[in-house]
Amino acid sequence: MSKGKKFKNAALLIIGNEILSGRTQDKNINYLAKQLFSHGISLEEVRIIPDVKSTIIKTVKSLKNNFNYIISTGGIGATHDDITAESISAALKKDYCLNKKALKELEKYYKNKSDLTDARKKMAYMPKGSKIILNKVSGAPGFQIENIYVFAGIPIIVEAMMNEFLKNIKSNTKIYSKSIKTKFFESMIAQKLKNTEIEFTDVRVGSYPIFDGKFRGVEIVMNSYSKKNIDLAFKYLKKELNKKI
Amino acid sequence: MSKGKKFKNAALLIIGNEILSGRTQDKNINYLAKQLFSHGISLEEVRIIPDVKSTIIKTVKSLKNNFNYIISTGGIGATHDDITAESISAALKKDYCLNKKALKELEKYYKNKSDLTDARKKMAYMPKGSKIILNKVSGAPGFQIENIYVFAGIPIIVEAMMNEFLKNIKSNTKIYSKSIKTKFFESMIAQKLKNTEIEFTDVRVGSYPIFDGKFRGVEIVMNSYSKKNIDLAFKYLKKELNKKI
Repeated sequence: MSKGKKFKNAALLIIGNEILSGRTQDKNINYLAKQLFSHGISLEEVRIIPDVKSTIIKTVKSLKNNFNYIISTGGIGATHDDITAESISAALKKDYCLNKKALKELEKYYKNKSDLTDARKKMAYMPKGSKIILNKVSGAPGFQIENIYVFAGIPIIVEAMMNEFLKNIKSNTKIYSKSIKTKFFESMIAQKLKNTEIEFTDVRVGSYPIFDGKFRGVEIVMNSYSKKNIDLAFKYLKKELNKKI
Repeated sequence: MSKGKKFKNAALLIIGNEILSGRTQDKNINYLAKQLFSHGISLEEVRIIPDVKSTIIKTVKSLKNNFNYIISTGGIGATHDDITAESISAALKKDYCLNKKALKELEKYYKNKSDLTDARKKMAYMPKGSKIILNKVSGAPGFQIENIYVFAGIPIIVEAMMNEFLKNIKSNTKIYSKSIKTKFFESMIAQKLKNTEIEFTDVRVGSYPIFDGKFRGVEIVMNSYSKKNIDLAFKYLKKELNKKI
């Protein structure tokens, strides 16, 4: 998958001690990876880091100039360990302040005024200049600032916020994928896979052993931004695999 | 969870395009996180990166001095896209060469000499000075060089290699964990959780909304390296939660 100028890339930043301690199985990475892939955005790095302000700041700074989009999940709730918005403000040297549109969303959600406690109002604080990302599930919005998109961590809310993200970025590129299953060992077909990548420089070829205690074969997966070339590469490799090994 | 000198930390490095494209759901992170946690090693960062030599080199260099242990998974098979061993050699400025013990393991596994093709022999190449990590599932070993432990990517092999790792590192510390379920909203108990952390500086307190479309309550999780202090913190917080809110 050659990286031309027209293809955008992304990094995910998963913020949460509960994933690092093994307490919670992450459910967002695979969902977001698939969504990005099918919208032609190449996910090129994922980082999972703890709810530690200095770590969030350092990580945001190191990712922000290397990717078109940074999507973060987690740490935007109402409790003391929700420090994502504050940390991102610090990383970008922006004021951390009340966003009026975010507050309106909270007021809409908490119809009973006494439910909108000070602790909950914290969820309307974000870096100055942020655009809110609507949360159709539980009110409290995420936000976008520069190329950083900040989502909640709960999977059902991540899905709602990802839909908002995809509506806004309007990606027109698509990644095409084809796969071939074989009974050969990887080592027997390694050269043929390499040749396919040399022959078709914008096709990326991966091979994945199918293994359930015993070796069952290999799945070869080809990805490309070019429909024409993935079709040609597919035919080429099929033919190569049919030759005597 | 205050980070005293006696507690070791770790980072995971997951190498694999198939996870970034969403094709494969990672199954190793949660398993490894739990194993590390229960052996008193604090997992403090996970990175998922593509099978790209320059990226692997850059990432290994940036992680290696910041953690006691780096565990990598993926990219040590027999095909053209298996470049982990070669890349780690380059990152550490070590020769990438045939490891005799690794070759012996392959010879034991591939009893029929003609099965041990040149492509498969590649799996015995590693950074000079590596110690092999036995693979009781499919022969080809992982390796350790400096503080980097290189595992295969297939979950069943990861488990076998993790067992070897744990045998070798002989960690004596243990992390204690206690949890409390409440019906309160996070925002209502935020201050009490914060106070618990202030009162018991070596206890880490996290709160996790239970949410299945509707809010069902909050699970509060406390972790500590001190059995005594986690018991005290648990009692303290229980009492606080029973006070009128």
